[in-house]
Amino acid sequence: MRIITDIAEMQAAARELRRNGTLALVPTMGALHAGHLSLIAAAKRDCTHVIASIFVNPLQFGPNEDFDRYPRTFKADCAALTAAGAEILFAPSAETLTPAGASTFIEVAGISDRLDGAHRPGHFRGVATIVAKLFNIVAPDRAYFGQKDAAQLAVLRAMVRDLNFSVEIVACPIVREADGLALSSRNRYLTAEQRSRATILHRALDAAAGLHARGERNAQVLIATMLRMLASEPTVVVEYAAVVDPETLMPLADTASGALIAVAAQLGDTRLIDNHLIGAVHA
Amino acid sequence: MRIITDIAEMQAAARELRRNGTLALVPTMGALHAGHLSLIAAAKRDCTHVIASIFVNPLQFGPNEDFDRYPRTFKADCAALTAAGAEILFAPSAETLTPAGASTFIEVAGISDRLDGAHRPGHFRGVATIVAKLFNIVAPDRAYFGQKDAAQLAVLRAMVRDLNFSVEIVACPIVREADGLALSSRNRYLTAEQRSRATILHRALDAAAGLHARGERNAQVLIATMLRMLASEPTVVVEYAAVVDPETLMPLADTASGALIAVAAQLGDTRLIDNHLIGAVHA
Repeated sequence: MRIITDIAEMQAAARELRRNGTLALVPTMGALHAGHLSLIAAAKRDCTHVIASIFVNPLQFGPNEDFDRYPRTFKADCAALTAAGAEILFAPSAETLTPAGASTFIEVAGISDRLDGAHRPGHFRGVATIVAKLFNIVAPDRAYFGQKDAAQLAVLRAMVRDLNFSVEIVACPIVREADGLALSSRNRYLTAEQRSRATILHRALDAAAGLHARGERNAQVLIATMLRMLASEPTVVVEYAAVVDPETLMPLADTASGALIAVAAQLGDTRLIDNHLIGAVHA
Repeated sequence: MRIITDIAEMQAAARELRRNGTLALVPTMGALHAGHLSLIAAAKRDCTHVIASIFVNPLQFGPNEDFDRYPRTFKADCAALTAAGAEILFAPSAETLTPAGASTFIEVAGISDRLDGAHRPGHFRGVATIVAKLFNIVAPDRAYFGQKDAAQLAVLRAMVRDLNFSVEIVACPIVREADGLALSSRNRYLTAEQRSRATILHRALDAAAGLHARGERNAQVLIATMLRMLASEPTVVVEYAAVVDPETLMPLADTASGALIAVAAQLGDTRLIDNHLIGAVHA
């Protein structure tokens, strides 16, 4: 796997690869787990060339968030990407991709202030800005993101649509541990006790999805169920439990047309998120 | 000349042209004059294929500005572009390029609030957003803009740099009437009397540039000279007379390293702008 840190070199390499096939981009912040590797696998199935990126994006962290302690496991990441079949890793420094003096930002208004955006002001502005830069540098045909960051997917899909990027956003299913915990680079922050309590997120989602499957359509009932279950773990501090439109992230009153059900919670200093897409009901 | 109004058709046509040569994009709002046609001529000299666009961008007009009465001369524009040698005209409707529900904006912070941006809140956000869309749809190698909109050039150059667009911004010199008035689509708003008074803009700039050429370096002296001359036409209401860095649009105290000197004024309901780039002094 070729590792590129320079923007002009990445642009030239992508231009060259594009001459004989399609390009996939898999943007990551490193600290890779099986969820990321499933994105690489999907990209390899769809496209001729797979380019991964690792960039711990300072623009998407708030002042009191975990930018400094975010896990950085570059050597292991390179080995995993090589084994998974990525052809190029683009790994620019912060000075390269977010130089002093840069002043241009992409704002996806509305969506960026919902779900995670409501709790992380400026987060999705930072995400959209860096992803747009990666799209401009690599010009991929397709870009792969995990369904776990469902709000991020909604923001990026709106950005691509509104700004006419020639890239298809591909969402890949959440990858879970055997006990159901959604994989996350932040899971390694958890103590053993927190780790066992953390399964309550997906169990709350499962319960709500089960109610929907058995005919419950009232979003407030699903939310109340999730909140009740999350409250059963007193050390889990709920940030949101929501039933929303997966495209706009606006709250839904009922789930007959399908919905994104999503939760976010703090366990100690660690913020975890998880979600389920529940399907439309066919009468 | 082929006229395209659909985004997907424009993307496909540009993709096809790019297979055998370089692409120039000349974005305009129509009501074309010799200044615009000089952009087409420059584009033809540099690139294999020239694509012009006409789009009166609603996002860049303020609520009390002249969007509704902005001159629309589509048939004459098509004839002029054909004669000048444009290969494709992209002329999407407002519904096509700015559909209801779009919520993504590009903000070039700082620069967008200086010069014209200080007097037209939101203007450069609208410009940057639409130009980014055109760049994404056409993916040109080069894009041509008039030096007359010097602040727009600074904003777009910052956007291209900060977001890593693979496009070179080319600025073309201001084209003037025989008496020095800078060509503008808005000149047609002027009454005969306003038209004759309007030459004070370039005469004020000439006077300041002349002082600089004769050794004056103090920006305040140049500004005072411009304001005194503009005041000599009492029906000309000055909006700004400025000496700034052409890249950042920040005020300069002295002109030893070169400067953008720029003026904006209202004549009745018509807002006119003009500028000179004055060179660095070599000791």
